[in-house]
Amino acid sequence: MATATAHRISRDEVVWAFGPDLVPVLEVEPGDVVTFETNDCFTGQIRSENDLVTEIDLGRINSATGPVAVRGAEPGDSLVAEIVDVRPIEWGVATLIPGFGQLIERVQAPLTRVFEVRDGWIRQTEKIRFPARPMVGVVGVATDGETLSNGLAGRHGGNLDNHLHGKGARIYFPVRQPGGMFAVGDMHASMGDGEICFTGVEIAGEVDVRFDVLKGKQATWPVTELAERWVAHATALEFDEALKLCAEEAARLLVDEHGFSMEDAFIFLSVACDAGIAQACKPAPGFGTIARFSIPNIEACPAPFSR
Amino acid sequence: MATATAHRISRDEVVWAFGPDLVPVLEVEPGDVVTFETNDCFTGQIRSENDLVTEIDLGRINSATGPVAVRGAEPGDSLVAEIVDVRPIEWGVATLIPGFGQLIERVQAPLTRVFEVRDGWIRQTEKIRFPARPMVGVVGVATDGETLSNGLAGRHGGNLDNHLHGKGARIYFPVRQPGGMFAVGDMHASMGDGEICFTGVEIAGEVDVRFDVLKGKQATWPVTELAERWVAHATALEFDEALKLCAEEAARLLVDEHGFSMEDAFIFLSVACDAGIAQACKPAPGFGTIARFSIPNIEACPAPFSR
Repeated sequence: MATATAHRISRDEVVWAFGPDLVPVLEVEPGDVVTFETNDCFTGQIRSENDLVTEIDLGRINSATGPVAVRGAEPGDSLVAEIVDVRPIEWGVATLIPGFGQLIERVQAPLTRVFEVRDGWIRQTEKIRFPARPMVGVVGVATDGETLSNGLAGRHGGNLDNHLHGKGARIYFPVRQPGGMFAVGDMHASMGDGEICFTGVEIAGEVDVRFDVLKGKQATWPVTELAERWVAHATALEFDEALKLCAEEAARLLVDEHGFSMEDAFIFLSVACDAGIAQACKPAPGFGTIARFSIPNIEACPAPFSR
Repeated sequence: MATATAHRISRDEVVWAFGPDLVPVLEVEPGDVVTFETNDCFTGQIRSENDLVTEIDLGRINSATGPVAVRGAEPGDSLVAEIVDVRPIEWGVATLIPGFGQLIERVQAPLTRVFEVRDGWIRQTEKIRFPARPMVGVVGVATDGETLSNGLAGRHGGNLDNHLHGKGARIYFPVRQPGGMFAVGDMHASMGDGEICFTGVEIAGEVDVRFDVLKGKQATWPVTELAERWVAHATALEFDEALKLCAEEAARLLVDEHGFSMEDAFIFLSVACDAGIAQACKPAPGFGTIARFSIPNIEACPAPFSR
């Protein structure tokens, strides 16, 4: 592995969609660390509780800083992005958006809430304070053909909105184009599983990412390795379909990489692994849902891929 | 609170359904601890990998030991059941059931797997070993009218199949009949969120429960208090509907018990709380799904109910 090298990409170097033809703003070696300055999902258009989501330019949503090409990453490989650190600034916002979310019929919307973020805590109101858990919502690589706006999730990643994508997560992306073409944005100081009002604590900041390449192996969707478990994802318009696809993806990795029979993979997923939700805001017109399966790092399958 | 008193109920004292007219086998005071001997969900009919789920008496499934009446528990109150300990025996079983589960079309079924459970670990095969997390699947109280077999979940509890219902969980049940009429069974040495093959590691054992009564307050479904969070539940045939109902239930508790505005409850659930799955095995003909919302025990809402 090459010696880690510091690189920095400005939050003015962004893409608004993941497609097949991304042009890199930086090329790095495996082992290099890059600091990405990221915009909040509204690109700074919402700065006070008087700024409403219905009044902003929706063409400037969910920017992702990059893309970065990693030398040696070729189609068929996995690009490994280790999130070394996530540093939000000291304020963020959440919004209630007309037509979005499980409780939207019970509230006044649009509405903006501004949060203070300091010393690992977030203040929603004078009374409501909760711990921060900084993570990135949009994180992905170039696609093999289609172009998907950053609000969407897919096999390339994109708006995965998984609260587990914080410090220490190692995300394996299926490389579809030479160099992979990695970009990241949409930081949240905190986001709950489900993200039922369609926003977390949306915030600008900096993300440090260390890159690596796993040759000749990839999953269908991004797969994430954590300290005590690894996590398969799948996306679909409806949550039931996403969960079924995610069970199939997790089982395929257990069978192909770790030698489980399909029967023992099915049983193991049922008795020892946790199905979950990354995002399932409903309604969310035009957007899909993201299912997750968490597999414990036991001796029989200590990582997504065998080594 | 009365001094804790030891009681024991045999695994021969069971109910197969929760209805309005349960007759108690024991009456206890608030503060009392009861040890429930529980059958595995198949009532011992599956003891080896030659015993198949298609060949057993399906009238003897999911027994719940009890019921226990708690003095002073009246309709409108919550019956609080604290799971003090869950002690599985040293072997359990899982099954693949024709027609059940996200991966059923990819496997041979029926199939039975026998697990060894010892020293906090579970052995599925020589290679696959994982940590135990003992919990109870069926846990509930009498209903206000309908009679639901123990395989079903509802506002009374029943087959909630929530892996968080292990040692230390305090479950608040809405009391619909005098005494509450609590029963418990369907222990799992481990069960994953989703329980996608429709079984966990099904096992017999003993459960110690301490009872209490919260006067004049109840939720719509059982609500569970843990060390670092509390958990609302909701059940429905489809997962999307269960999740929406669960968001409404969690928001109602935040608004009614903790003084949140509905807008701040919606935002807080989106940015700081985790939507999740207790059970979502699909297909599972005739059975519903169970959604969960986990709320952190912050100062603004340290428990399900204000005190």
